[in-house]
Amino acid sequence: MNPTAKAHRTTIPVRYGETDQMGVVHHAVFVDYFEVGRTEMMAAHGLEYAALERDGLLLVVVEVRVRYAAPARFGDRVVVETRVTAVENVRVRFDYQVLRDASDTLLAAGHTVLAALDRNLRPRRIPGEVATVLRSLIGDGRAALP
Amino acid sequence: MNPTAKAHRTTIPVRYGETDQMGVVHHAVFVDYFEVGRTEMMAAHGLEYAALERDGLLLVVVEVRVRYAAPARFGDRVVVETRVTAVENVRVRFDYQVLRDASDTLLAAGHTVLAALDRNLRPRRIPGEVATVLRSLIGDGRAALP
Amino acid sequence: MNPTAKAHRTTIPVRYGETDQMGVVHHAVFVDYFEVGRTEMMAAHGLEYAALERDGLLLVVVEVRVRYAAPARFGDRVVVETRVTAVENVRVRFDYQVLRDASDTLLAAGHTVLAALDRNLRPRRIPGEVATVLRSLIGDGRAALP
Amino acid sequence: MNPTAKAHRTTIPVRYGETDQMGVVHHAVFVDYFEVGRTEMMAAHGLEYAALERDGLLLVVVEVRVRYAAPARFGDRVVVETRVTAVENVRVRFDYQVLRDASDTLLAAGHTVLAALDRNLRPRRIPGEVATVLRSLIGDGRAALP
Repeated sequence: MNPTAKAHRTTIPVRYGETDQMGVVHHAVFVDYFEVGRTEMMAAHGLEYAALERDGLLLVVVEVRVRYAAPARFGDRVVVETRVTAVENVRVRFDYQVLRDASDTLLAAGHTVLAALDRNLRPRRIPGEVATVLRSLIGDGRAALP
Repeated sequence: MNPTAKAHRTTIPVRYGETDQMGVVHHAVFVDYFEVGRTEMMAAHGLEYAALERDGLLLVVVEVRVRYAAPARFGDRVVVETRVTAVENVRVRFDYQVLRDASDTLLAAGHTVLAALDRNLRPRRIPGEVATVLRSLIGDGRAALP
Repeated sequence: MNPTAKAHRTTIPVRYGETDQMGVVHHAVFVDYFEVGRTEMMAAHGLEYAALERDGLLLVVVEVRVRYAAPARFGDRVVVETRVTAVENVRVRFDYQVLRDASDTLLAAGHTVLAALDRNLRPRRIPGEVATVLRSLIGDGRAALP
Repeated sequence: MNPTAKAHRTTIPVRYGETDQMGVVHHAVFVDYFEVGRTEMMAAHGLEYAALERDGLLLVVVEVRVRYAAPARFGDRVVVETRVTAVENVRVRFDYQVLRDASDTLLAAGHTVLAALDRNLRPRRIPGEVATVLRSLIGDGRAALP
């Protein structure tokens, strides 16, 4: 996936409790890092997720994939580069690259697919104004939804 | 705190992701272990916390204290011994001891104080039938609420 | 992936702290559930991961994928069905299905690929006796490594 | 505990995965917030914890206490105010206040006591140069070690 102007960068200092006895950040934590990148990207473009939820739009993760390239360590600051790569009626896909801040070393890459649900956890369309913003964020890194 | 007949024992296998780079279970995880012990003790006595919440009784932690005595490690199974030590109109206190299963070595001890709230997070009385069960669990390990 | 005789079933009670404000188990937690399933399956066949690490064999997750089908909730007990689906010189793949215990409803499915490393986090071969055990666990659910 | 000039302020955006089904940040997460505040305060004064560990100084939490005053929610940014309140030969105490950034509402307060250990998890003295820095951070909020 090529970098585009639409990538959002979020810096996260690694927490001690995120490491495991291998001395590196536990792999499950990257799924949380993705989420931080995604919610901060959306907020930066006027889509406060807390407000969307209050308005009855839940975006639930229906798929996540992470490929790990190099370890993150306590003392590192990691950068999550988040991109919107596909928007459909009820689904949106985000792609992520996690880099070590000091060196831009790639630590992990992956994606999530989210589905729009209502408060009763039933599928619903992504509202037009939300979809418009999300679509505007798709750069040249467009990806297919599975 | 002396052991009493009313202690509830819950066994929890340590998860790899719960360790940190010191090679031991991260200290914050013991607060989760306490919670597992507490909810399983309540369930064992007919107080399913999920059902209480559906009925509008939220029990929120307003205080937690943990003293750590020895490390837990991946590969260990820990035992949480939970006791009810005080019940008041709107608050209940639980005391905990976390032991290494294989040896009964004390790993940590502590307590939590919980307050009863309604769905809007406002204080409410603990319903009589719930308080009766909780009081019946207090053995000779009674403690003062702060 | 068809069930085989070689699947290992691990039961995990959902912890309250694993839920999020959507009222369901947070999606990242399933990566931890996979890990619990994997380490318990290995231990059940004589491969105590803690002992392998002491002997200088680290198995690090280089890829994880999860597809979510239905929510898990506090009060549920989930069952992780783990299968070994591929073993190579330096990599092993596990596939997982997470079911709601009471109903066998599929909650999530996915896989992880692990790479063998030495203590310095450099690639190494999976020792013969470990590979033999892992290969013996592959049933008719064999999968390709990417 | 009165504010002093020596308090260190760290801002942490609440992560979605840190909430629980009550719609607020799970109580165990505040123990992680304390740790973030403590490690960032130390780093701000030249005590990089990762470097201390490499040099053979482990600081392990032997006691933690948290009192909860008000809920933190997804969408909040919390501020951790950290103070060093006691330094002894082998132990150091930090006190914390967690505030909601937008309003300075107190969400939680507490403390941790840490003990100095060597790589084999045996007690050791806090090295003189580290103790000197820590002592210099004690303002008028001095507290007793238990």
